[in-house]
Amino acid sequence: MPKNKTQYESEQVAGNGLLHRRLFLSGGMALVGAGFLGVKQAQAANPTDFPDWMRVEGSSAGEYGLRSSHESDVVRLVNPRQGAVAIASGSRTPLERLEGMITPNALHFERHHSGIPDINPDQHRLMLHGMVQRPLSFSMDALHRYPMETRTHFIECSGNSRALNAANPVQGTAGSLHGLLSCTEWTGIPLAILLDEAGLDPSASWLLAEGADAAAMSRSIPLDKALDDALLVLYQNGEAIRPSNGYPLRLLVPGYEGNANVKWLRRLKVTDAPTMTRDETSKYTDLLADGTSRMFSLNLESKSVITSPSGGQQMNGPGLYQISGLAWSGHGRITKVEVSADGGLSWAEAALSGPVHSKSLTRFRLPWRWNGNESILMSRATDETGFIQPTRQQIFAKWGTRFGYHTNSIQCWGISGTGEVNNVYI
Amino acid sequence: MPKNKTQYESEQVAGNGLLHRRLFLSGGMALVGAGFLGVKQAQAANPTDFPDWMRVEGSSAGEYGLRSSHESDVVRLVNPRQGAVAIASGSRTPLERLEGMITPNALHFERHHSGIPDINPDQHRLMLHGMVQRPLSFSMDALHRYPMETRTHFIECSGNSRALNAANPVQGTAGSLHGLLSCTEWTGIPLAILLDEAGLDPSASWLLAEGADAAAMSRSIPLDKALDDALLVLYQNGEAIRPSNGYPLRLLVPGYEGNANVKWLRRLKVTDAPTMTRDETSKYTDLLADGTSRMFSLNLESKSVITSPSGGQQMNGPGLYQISGLAWSGHGRITKVEVSADGGLSWAEAALSGPVHSKSLTRFRLPWRWNGNESILMSRATDETGFIQPTRQQIFAKWGTRFGYHTNSIQCWGISGTGEVNNVYI
Repeated sequence: MPKNKTQYESEQVAGNGLLHRRLFLSGGMALVGAGFLGVKQAQAANPTDFPDWMRVEGSSAGEYGLRSSHESDVVRLVNPRQGAVAIASGSRTPLERLEGMITPNALHFERHHSGIPDINPDQHRLMLHGMVQRPLSFSMDALHRYPMETRTHFIECSGNSRALNAANPVQGTAGSLHGLLSCTEWTGIPLAILLDEAGLDPSASWLLAEGADAAAMSRSIPLDKALDDALLVLYQNGEAIRPSNGYPLRLLVPGYEGNANVKWLRRLKVTDAPTMTRDETSKYTDLLADGTSRMFSLNLESKSVITSPSGGQQMNGPGLYQISGLAWSGHGRITKVEVSADGGLSWAEAALSGPVHSKSLTRFRLPWRWNGNESILMSRATDETGFIQPTRQQIFAKWGTRFGYHTNSIQCWGISGTGEVNNVYI
Repeated sequence: MPKNKTQYESEQVAGNGLLHRRLFLSGGMALVGAGFLGVKQAQAANPTDFPDWMRVEGSSAGEYGLRSSHESDVVRLVNPRQGAVAIASGSRTPLERLEGMITPNALHFERHHSGIPDINPDQHRLMLHGMVQRPLSFSMDALHRYPMETRTHFIECSGNSRALNAANPVQGTAGSLHGLLSCTEWTGIPLAILLDEAGLDPSASWLLAEGADAAAMSRSIPLDKALDDALLVLYQNGEAIRPSNGYPLRLLVPGYEGNANVKWLRRLKVTDAPTMTRDETSKYTDLLADGTSRMFSLNLESKSVITSPSGGQQMNGPGLYQISGLAWSGHGRITKVEVSADGGLSWAEAALSGPVHSKSLTRFRLPWRWNGNESILMSRATDETGFIQPTRQQIFAKWGTRFGYHTNSIQCWGISGTGEVNNVYI
């Protein structure tokens, strides 16, 4: 008989029942004895007691598959339409219903400034002009012959989590409060290759990127970033990028605020200064306490959120649970996520699901024995630059309270004595 | 202006136009001068020449997204129905239309022995019994409280690529010949945890795993494997596992032949010998040249296939192309993929898209300058055990020609002088 591995460890590593992130097995009674599961198990049923669905032939294979009808309530939260048109439509990923790192394409968050254009890829062109030696135009067929790379990165709207700036806690789910956030395996062409082909003017320093939506949504991108790790993405989790994510071509600038990842990319103009488009002046600029603005604050900082248990969920009695959540940083890899179950008095290090990618969502998990009392769960992420996710108070002290972007403060979930989970401030 | 990185290298590294796997940029004319692109680029168009879709409001965000109507031909190849029922239905992933490592859930291959059951998760139970101290039964709610892990693994049907055993080359696409193969980010519970809870009898050495389909499809799994890296998976690429992949619960035995990854898992019985189910005796046993059988050859060996260019595709004239393909091994990580453009006379090492996961599809790529002449493209994978993917001749010499499983011979794509790509033998 194979040996089980080592001693089970139920060691409490921080206050209010946080347990060590590694689960060790001893064989036999350890898990039950330690009460790890906290879930009553019935005796095994009769193996020949067949459920109804084993008594009929199942359905056939198909060309493009569907999910179970029993999961049809797992949907994006769609923003109410503003007036009669689709302008400024958006939807949020139901983070509390997902697990792992990847967001399935059908549930990737959306934020559109004039709706989703219906682009015929045979007619779509990418223009590359401005301060270059050779202005170029690329068909999609041409782009498909270029060398490609595959990388996993998150995209987060810079307006995500804005609710945490409200004076009083807004009640909602992990998805409704933080779901302008998704993570994808992207495949595309390093932008540096196309810029090299066009030949950059020595005084070039910025790019204008413009989308083929009715808003011609456009943003300025530093040329350093374009030459570093920007991709022109054609594929999303293996298949062609979805229309709501920029089909047939999206600019990906890993770690930058979502809006800078211009969808339906049609034009790149090389410049020697930011273009100051309406999308980066009237919006996506941080209003500071003194009335001035912080511009081109493109990179997103360390952040995390516990997705289970989370807002709107109901605990199923005292016992052992798995705390699970997501951490990310626009500056590189997440190196540590700490979890507190006592409102920040003590912290325990969560297990990170590896391999940890740079500028990617990172799943963290930690076992927790809930004693049934009121508790406050928190998580805080640290990235490879050493930046530690701040509290609300720290953010307000640094930036004031008038800004509406780049909110990365610590989310506190309060658990009541009856097991309700709510957004709380401490 | 930012500096470009290093000297562009168009060095030929193997016969018939294979170039170095890393693309270096020099700034300016290098790419054009080297003829890398081989694609005529028009001059940039007028930026204010707006396409039709920029002149109308786009569509709104939605709850569960769809792909572009222009991609509706990217579908699985569904096996013809055998008789009037869905028994033995299946479908193949269109590998030649995908990029990256992840297979989107809607395009994961299928192989069903009595169709897809429509399971209500509230009524589904997992039984764990046999040679254990405590027979147990788990509801799905109970399982959702257990500790989980997230890992990326391929699944391949052991009957995949069987066409390469035919006496004459069967014409088809990468997907029709090799598409019983997909790769997913799976999230689930380490099976070792449940076995520890049940308490294993010291003489236990095997498991029987049974599905809740009408076939009660069942396979024997060595207990060593179950305690090593088997998962009970609940999530597939972030969302609940799809019905065609075993909703609500699948046994994942990474690196084992697909059929052993029992879908719709309802029962695990701990035993001291394989159960010799019909699914592992009448099928999934390797018939050898002398008429005897090789049983429980569960682990899949090093394998690879070039997906672009591949069967049924048409080259668009001489010039530079990216060769792209997939490699995998049931024994661990892929360490090397070599590509030949001259029918195996010379080989060049392809770039592997990292991080390379164990028992996962691994994307490889290599630039190639096609001179327009007849060529034969091949790829061969090596895994961390040092095992090198064999040729057809090597496989036949070792196992004979009567077997129908575990075909992992090298795929040769012949390119004609007019650019047609066909399955060829050499």
